[in-house]
Amino acid sequence: MKEIVSLMDYRSSIKVVDATLRDGGLVNDFYFTDEFVRALYESNVKAGVDYMEMGYKASKEMFDQSKFGKWKFCDDDDIRAIVGDNDTNLKIAVMADVGRCDYKKDILSRSESPIDLIRVATYLNTIPAAANMIEDAKKKGYEVTCNIMAISNGQESDLKVALEILGQTSADVLYIVDSFGSLYPEQIARITDTYMEFATKYNKQLGIHAHNNQQLAFANTIEAVGDGVDWLDATYAGMGRGAGNCAMELLLGFLRNPKYNNFYVIQFIEKYMNKLKEDGVVWGFDLQYMMTGLLNQHPRAAIQFTKDKRKDYAEFYKEVVAQD
Amino acid sequence: MKEIVSLMDYRSSIKVVDATLRDGGLVNDFYFTDEFVRALYESNVKAGVDYMEMGYKASKEMFDQSKFGKWKFCDDDDIRAIVGDNDTNLKIAVMADVGRCDYKKDILSRSESPIDLIRVATYLNTIPAAANMIEDAKKKGYEVTCNIMAISNGQESDLKVALEILGQTSADVLYIVDSFGSLYPEQIARITDTYMEFATKYNKQLGIHAHNNQQLAFANTIEAVGDGVDWLDATYAGMGRGAGNCAMELLLGFLRNPKYNNFYVIQFIEKYMNKLKEDGVVWGFDLQYMMTGLLNQHPRAAIQFTKDKRKDYAEFYKEVVAQD
Repeated sequence: MKEIVSLMDYRSSIKVVDATLRDGGLVNDFYFTDEFVRALYESNVKAGVDYMEMGYKASKEMFDQSKFGKWKFCDDDDIRAIVGDNDTNLKIAVMADVGRCDYKKDILSRSESPIDLIRVATYLNTIPAAANMIEDAKKKGYEVTCNIMAISNGQESDLKVALEILGQTSADVLYIVDSFGSLYPEQIARITDTYMEFATKYNKQLGIHAHNNQQLAFANTIEAVGDGVDWLDATYAGMGRGAGNCAMELLLGFLRNPKYNNFYVIQFIEKYMNKLKEDGVVWGFDLQYMMTGLLNQHPRAAIQFTKDKRKDYAEFYKEVVAQD
Repeated sequence: MKEIVSLMDYRSSIKVVDATLRDGGLVNDFYFTDEFVRALYESNVKAGVDYMEMGYKASKEMFDQSKFGKWKFCDDDDIRAIVGDNDTNLKIAVMADVGRCDYKKDILSRSESPIDLIRVATYLNTIPAAANMIEDAKKKGYEVTCNIMAISNGQESDLKVALEILGQTSADVLYIVDSFGSLYPEQIARITDTYMEFATKYNKQLGIHAHNNQQLAFANTIEAVGDGVDWLDATYAGMGRGAGNCAMELLLGFLRNPKYNNFYVIQFIEKYMNKLKEDGVVWGFDLQYMMTGLLNQHPRAAIQFTKDKRKDYAEFYKEVVAQD
């Protein structure tokens, strides 16, 4: 049982990362209006959010710029058009996927960039490439985090080797990622325990990025908080791929640090997120995501079900259960 | 940290109680069609659910029968029209609220009734009346549970006295109820600890009934499972007052007892619950419920906000924060 003081007081080492544009961008191919992005930036500043992830630094060789909004690529100039010199307490982040970005070219030196934090995302089978990207970003002057994706499908022994390798890099933060939304709080507690072993050994902080397939994104995030995880990803109205993420409004409601102000989050949701939903952008908990989560599968079949506007949930259940 | 075996294996003492008609009835004034109720009964039988709560035994003196569907009153004949002799493993339950029912008259002897379980619901200030109702139901031959409502607003010292009194009754199960959806899993763990002290002393089982104001109804329920709580309330698609309850489909997905079969729950939701939603019946997580949950307030202002089809969430936030 966690100490009661952890619910009443706050831990000043906790950082809240707004991932709305990045994970939410996976829902609408990153087609956010400038007005939306600017208002989100201003809302984050007023709400006391610590980091705002603008999107991906995706390779323009691999991805057709005409098929995505600009936040899939996050040119420094596009960021600067929103944040100017960013003379605020909100820091700016982007995600860089192993194998899907030209980081040597596209990530400039921090002194020339509006970006503060590079978030390297990797699978368990690309850890050495992730390590190279971490060192590149660190050498350029950035704060660096590393997300290990899809760990619920990996072996614990592989995860430990990955943490050993990443522990020896100069990454500041190692992230627990529940890509498929398949983990229960009890499992998060055990995984955090494993991560903490290496975090302690190598003096790293820990982060968590959760998905809401089983309505546990928020619960898993606050479980991790209680276990010592400091970096917390959240998105406005939980916007994110498939069932979405931990909702910013729930997270700021939970955290007791007086620097956070949930009013601005609610105001932004009322004005902008609900508008997105009215315009037909679909995300959030639904049965198809629960099923892939329960089966620890990638949500792509469920996302297709949603795109096809199918409503035959029982038939879909048979389909996913029948998959080898 | 809970034992890993609790996630992989199952505890045969766990009972799942379907509260769709009872808590869901608070959303639509109990106007469910006979077809709906019959299909729900059949679904529960096939899914392996342990108890089905048909509704309330409400006083016909206090409540106008022309203003509610029949499941607010749960006449034995109406139940029998659905379940016949109920020659199944599914047991039948009704709720009886202290001060809102004529239990001496309306609750018949179990030998004459299709009902198996009387669920007495009480506030902390009506515990002696609840004790009388418990003894009446027990004497008539029923299984008896007791829900102590709104405990998040009560004093821990009062709760302990209540548990001491109820422990000495012949109730089989004492229920933790998060009426306002304001509790976090860490608090559920502490409250369960308190309940368990008296359950051990008086040889009672424990139950939990959660609300989803902070998307924690399922998380709080499985937290309680891990802490030794055996009786678990859930509703199809989470239907229930305001933000609703722990979703049956999430709960059966979590429980590993092979007697449960989630397919039938999904099938029922597809055919019946989604139809209710299309017909304009509104329940489930939304910002207004989150706000009253965060403030540990009764959801009635949020329910009114929903009924009025208001969308000015930021304004509502100011209203609830401003309330003394």
